[in-house]
This record gives sequence, C-alpha cells and structure tokens, in this order.
Amino acid sequence: MESRKLVIIGGDAAGMGAASKVRREHPEREIVVFERGNHTSYAACGMPYYIAGQVESSEELVARSPGVFREKQNIDVRIRHEVLDIDPGSKRVKVRNLSKGEEFWEDWDDLLIATGASAILPDLPGVDAAGVFALSTLQTGIDAFEDMQTHKPSKAVIIGGGYIGIEMAEALLARGMEVTVVDMADQVMSTMDKDMADRIAEVMEKDGIHLYLKEKLRQVDKDTQGRVASVVTDKQTLKADVVFLGMGVKPNSGLAARAGVKLGVRDAIRVNKSLQTSVPHVWAAGDCAESYHLVKSEQAYVPLGTVANKHALVAGINISGGQARFPGVLGTAITKFNQLEIARTGLSEKEAEELGINFIANTIDSPTLSGYFPGTGKMTVKLVAHKDTGRLLGGQIVGMQTAGKRIDTIAAAITAGLTVQQLVDMDLAYAPPFSPVWDPVQTAARTLL
Amino acid sequence: MESRKLVIIGGDAAGMGAASKVRREHPEREIVVFERGNHTSYAACGMPYYIAGQVESSEELVARSPGVFREKQNIDVRIRHEVLDIDPGSKRVKVRNLSKGEEFWEDWDDLLIATGASAILPDLPGVDAAGVFALSTLQTGIDAFEDMQTHKPSKAVIIGGGYIGIEMAEALLARGMEVTVVDMADQVMSTMDKDMADRIAEVMEKDGIHLYLKEKLRQVDKDTQGRVASVVTDKQTLKADVVFLGMGVKPNSGLAARAGVKLGVRDAIRVNKSLQTSVPHVWAAGDCAESYHLVKSEQAYVPLGTVANKHALVAGINISGGQARFPGVLGTAITKFNQLEIARTGLSEKEAEELGINFIANTIDSPTLSGYFPGTGKMTVKLVAHKDTGRLLGGQIVGMQTAGKRIDTIAAAITAGLTVQQLVDMDLAYAPPFSPVWDPVQTAARTLL
Repeated sequence: MESRKLVIIGGDAAGMGAASKVRREHPEREIVVFERGNHTSYAACGMPYYIAGQVESSEELVARSPGVFREKQNIDVRIRHEVLDIDPGSKRVKVRNLSKGEEFWEDWDDLLIATGASAILPDLPGVDAAGVFALSTLQTGIDAFEDMQTHKPSKAVIIGGGYIGIEMAEALLARGMEVTVVDMADQVMSTMDKDMADRIAEVMEKDGIHLYLKEKLRQVDKDTQGRVASVVTDKQTLKADVVFLGMGVKPNSGLAARAGVKLGVRDAIRVNKSLQTSVPHVWAAGDCAESYHLVKSEQAYVPLGTVANKHALVAGINISGGQARFPGVLGTAITKFNQLEIARTGLSEKEAEELGINFIANTIDSPTLSGYFPGTGKMTVKLVAHKDTGRLLGGQIVGMQTAGKRIDTIAAAITAGLTVQQLVDMDLAYAPPFSPVWDPVQTAARTLL
Repeated sequence: MESRKLVIIGGDAAGMGAASKVRREHPEREIVVFERGNHTSYAACGMPYYIAGQVESSEELVARSPGVFREKQNIDVRIRHEVLDIDPGSKRVKVRNLSKGEEFWEDWDDLLIATGASAILPDLPGVDAAGVFALSTLQTGIDAFEDMQTHKPSKAVIIGGGYIGIEMAEALLARGMEVTVVDMADQVMSTMDKDMADRIAEVMEKDGIHLYLKEKLRQVDKDTQGRVASVVTDKQTLKADVVFLGMGVKPNSGLAARAGVKLGVRDAIRVNKSLQTSVPHVWAAGDCAESYHLVKSEQAYVPLGTVANKHALVAGINISGGQARFPGVLGTAITKFNQLEIARTGLSEKEAEELGINFIANTIDSPTLSGYFPGTGKMTVKLVAHKDTGRLLGGQIVGMQTAGKRIDTIAAAITAGLTVQQLVDMDLAYAPPFSPVWDPVQTAARTLL
C-alpha cells in the first residue's frame, strides 16, 4: 500500500479529508491532489454568512490552506491544476496547469475523484450578465462579495427558495437590501412538505422578503454595460442590481463519465458502500458521488458537507487498505432564516407518498422552552412514520431558537429503527430554559400515536 | 372500570397527569385528588427562575389550577387536604381538611400515591432559622421570594452545589447578591464526573460565586430576631442574610410505608414497570416512586419532572384498565449556570466504575458552532462506552449556548443500544450557525474510537 501512488482530483472537503486520512495511515505514501481553483478545504456553507458580513474574511472559511497541507502533511496539493482526462487503462490523468497553460500526464495507482458539484445554471438569455451569481466554489462567493462592495446594489433578486436561496435572502437583508425571492414551485424549500414550507414563507414575508411562488425565470435583462438591470419572469419584470441563482447543484461527473466511470442517481458517480466506482482502483467521494439512503434503501444524491466528510473518511480508510463502509444518509439538513430555524431528516410526507409507503404523518405546535420562560418561541414539528410498524421515517422542524438541532434526536431514532412509541418513551433532557417537560419532538410523537 | 372510584394522593405532575389520563379514558369515573398544599400541577423546576425575577408571577408556574381541573375535567381536587393514613384492607384513606381541621375517611377502589419528594434537611442547630429555605413545593418558592422582597438580603449562602444549588446561585446572582456555594464533596454536580464538574466550578468562580468545596455545614447562627446571621462550616463562618439548602431530596414515602407498601431504592416506593406497588390496587408515581434504569438494568430513584410525567401516563393507562409499561430512565438531566449549559445522560465514569463495568471514556473540546461563526462558544463532551461491545453507556456535556440539548442525541443512541461507531456514522444536522461539520458529540465518538 505504502508504495501505491494516490492521485486525488479536487481539493475540498472530500478530497482533502481522504488525503489526510490516507496520510495518517501511510506516512510515506505519495499523495498528489489537483485542484483547479485557488482554495482547499473551505466551508462553502459559510459563504452566505461571509456575504452577510458576519464572517470577517473569506480566509476564515478556509479550514486548511494548500501550503499547510504541503508542509504539515506532506500532501502535494497543486492548486490551479485542472484534470482534463482520466485514462483508467494506463492509469494516468491529463492535467492542465492553469497558471502556466502547460499540460502533462500524471500516473496513479489509486485515483480518487472528488470533483464536487456546480450550481445549476439555466440556459436563458442574459444569465451571463455581470452581477448574476451562483454560489458554488469559494471563489464564486468572493467574487459576489467583492462585486457588492464595489457596486453597492440595493435591489436583489434570488431565483430559487431552497437552502442557498433562503440563506442568501437572510444575508442580503442583513446588508440592508431589498430582497425578492422567486421560485417556480408552489412552496419554498422543496425538501420540506408544503405545510412546513408555508410557515417559512410566512416568516420570510413578515421579515420583508418579496416572495413570488409559481413563477418562472424567463430571462435577465442587461444594461448598456452588460450588467443585470432586471429579471423577467413569466409573470412580471423585477428590477435588480444583483441576482443570485439558487437553483440547485449538479455533480461534476462529466470527467468521470468520459473515462467510462458509471453514473447513477441524478448523474452522480455511482459508488458502492466502499466508495469504489465501476472502474477498478478509481474511487469517488463528496458532492460528485452518490450515497446510500438509509430510509429509502436505495442510492440517492445528497450533496452536503456532512456527507462529504463521511465519504472522505470511508474512502480514505479503504484506499489505505482498510475496510470501511459508508453508513448511509438520512438527508438530514438544517438552515435558518433570521430567527427561524429549519431542519429535516429522513422522508418527507411527499417522499413517502412517492415511494408508495403506507405512512401516517402529523404536525404539532409547541413552545421551544417552558411556556413561562423568557425567550420561549413557537416551533412546529412534523413526523412521518410507517403505518403498520410505527417505525419513524422522517421529521421536519420549523421554529425559533433552539428548535432546529432537535432534528438530531429524530435522526438518531430513525437510524436506530425506533418506533414512534419509543420516541415518546425516550428519556430526553428537560429544564425550563431548554424545553417543555415533554420535548416538542415527543409531543409530536405522542400526538401521532 | 368506569365504576371504580379512584383516589389520588398528591396533586402535582404525577397525580394530576394520571388523573387527566384516566379522565380521558373514562369520562364518568369518580376521581378524587387530595393535595395537602395550595397548588396543583406546578412547575417546581421553574422556581429558581421565578426567584431570579425572570418569571413574572408564581401563577405562571401553575400549569392548571384546582378550579380548572374541577370545571373542565370533572376531577374532584381538594387542596389543603392531607392524607394521614392508608388502610389497604378496607380500601380507605383517612384525610384531614387542613382548613377546617376536620378528619374523615374516603373509600377507594384504586389508589394512586403521588406524594412527591421533600428537600433533605440536615439535623443541625439553627436550620430552622428564619431566612433558611429549602425549595420543594411551590409554596416554599413563594415564601422564599416574598422573604427576599421584604428583607432585601445581600449575602446568600447556598449549601449544596447540585442542580438546585447551581440554579439558585444563578438566580441570586441575577438579584445582585453576593453568593457563596458550599459543598461537602470535592466537586459540584455529583451526577457528573469530576473533570466535567471542574469546568462548571471554573465558570461559577469566574462569574463571581464564592465556591467552597470539601466543606461541611455545622450549624446556622441566628440573630436576636431568630433570623439567619451566619453559616458555620467545619472550616469557617460565613455571614448570610439568606440561606438556601440544596442537599437533595427524599421521597415522601412514609405514609405508604406505614400502610405496608414496600419501599425500594433510597426509600422510594417500590413499583414494577406497570407502576403497581406491592399492595393490590395501590399504585405509585412521580418523585415518591422508583424507576427502572435502562443502562444499570436495576431500579433507581430519579425524582425529575420528565420521569413524573411518564409515570403519570403509564399509571393512568393501567388504572384505566389498559396495558402500559414504564420504558425506563437514563437519568437524563440538564441545567445551566448563566451562559454555561450542563447536561448528562446514562452512566458517568464514576457510576460505570461502581458497577464494575469494563468501560472506556474520553473527553473532548469542540466549538459549539462552526469555528468562524459569530457566537460560537466552547463546549466539552464526555462519553462513556462499554469496552468490549463499544455500546454507548453515558454522556456528559458542559458548554456554551446550544451545547446542552445535544445530550438528547446521546440519550437516543443509548436508548437504542447503539455503539460509538454508530454515533460517528449518524447523519446529524450541520450548518455553520448550528454546529461544526462533525457535531461535537460525533467528534467525541470519533476520538473515543
């Protein structure tokens, strides 16, 4: 193992996490990482807060720089190096040094593809206008931030009311801007059920967001300098000084596909639980790869930082000759809009329906803390369970401070295959500053019984 | 069932919870509750916050008053009625109307003993001084609050650094008092391990509490009016205008014992998982009764509101002719001192040692949120696991805002019999305002592996 050369394509969480794990196992093994951008191991999830001005500098989002990887861990990270081709037959990758314009071939014994995901850009007129941004790499966040420092936009339009859309809405509101969110669906946050999403929409509008649902982006109009002037939907024209596209992400799997690596769900790279691809000695991890979904019992595409970090650990162990299997995901996710916390795990009612599961679901309101305790707020919990067995399938939470992370209790219960009754029975923590005597997730479970 | 008369002794959470459950099952059944105090269904846990002035009125702590129980639920609640004797042979209780001074006998078909617990008072000179308080019933809290409104004490001494001691220290500090805490142990919070307790002590002292450990109360000195003047320990004399005793609680089980009902752990009323006592048709619930401990696999005494509420539900179902079994406790508990959150579940290292379990334990520090996110704080997580099987046995958390309720994730994992590896594998929620990408409980689990 020690003598096998490892090449990794992509220097963010999945790639560098795996590199670090292999290095810990094999202090002498040659590890080369090609990263086409300027940064390694950054917290993409932190970008909205950086843009809001809550994080002092983009450097704070970088967990570990290329220089540190090189010096402290002897990992040969080469930024601004793009891998153009993978040749699994001769076990080589073709690399372009973006700074020098040179191309060369690099050999490998093991290859890890950790190319991440990209923002989905619609093929519509004017989307290339200056002032139109879609966050994916750290560089896109820095570009957006600097653009706003320079142009001081006052009207923002966000296309898409998902995680990025909601977080950017908060961020731009914090910058004092007038913010409009447009989504083609009849709700925000498509990973939640509509009844929960409606509660989010209500708070967004109360806090000053102009929200237009069931409305589709048609084009972006530019001014004479080529900068965005307005956003045209199928219903209206909205003035805009800056536009953010939050229309979801797609896996960067084209390079792998061209090399004959099989793709799976939503064109993510197909991997088994060891994170091996269809091609021997080629692995994939992070936002470019599939994950096994524990409740759906099938492959899924869940491009999240938590998953990328777990992928990295499993891939790193296996590339080092160990035996690790990816434990699976529940699609647990959390975000917030101003004071409102939003979280989900497992199956939504919508997903349970689509899968043809015989389920029951209910939604309850509860105070976050003891009703008389100062700072108590409202929260809503929705649970989905199997009708026959009573097994928990999913949960959704929308509510004020401290509401969101309660999703972890539900995630733990689902992971363990517990029933609604077992959630009611659970000995959870109570004191007036923290919870009502029955934790809201238990109140939801009691009501569902 | 409908025709069986139910008498309940004690009108707090356990008694009234069970009464309400029986009423829901049997709309016509006769239910009589004798409560020797003035209040029903109050949040005893809220008293420190009431005393701190954070809860506006003691009435806010009352979930439901006797009048409401009578009118809305047709439950015959009689406050200021003390049960003096239980006669299981003739199925009667002897009751004293404390307002009128009259005594009478009341028949029952089923009897639920929900007499709660009392503060432990040391048999030492001067403990009966005016200005010395031990919180148990709501009335004791009201008395203490009113005493402080009248006497405006400036120096407080608290005996005992457990939950009540720590919460009262926060409350009295919030009232602008000089606060001293004395504990005979070498640590505060005896339900936590010393390494965790030391972190709590550090914050208490930093925030201005005078903390004296390994120091025993000897007596209370009174002034000429019979009010507390100072507290004498085995090492020093401390001036005091008011004293709070937080030396633990003991079950109010004397009445049951005199009637031949068997007692168990720490003289709590012995109950099986159906909450039946050793005497037919006599049940017990709440702080006067034992609970089954899920990790210790033996009976335990856990006088907490969460447990009392679960007892009430199980007893209520069974008294109604249903079939419910108490699911067991983990000893999950949470509190806070100013900004510091403190939580525990399952076995501490100390308890694992005492039980002769072959365990491993470790303690890690982590930020509460993403390191770069504003408001991130320090937190410490300790995990205890079985050495051979890797099964989680217990967890302890001390840390800044949002740290504490993470104990629920650990509690869920212990309940489900999960291993440390399964906790690492869990799909928990991450976003920068909520957590590092590996939740601190997972970081603790990874380190323990």
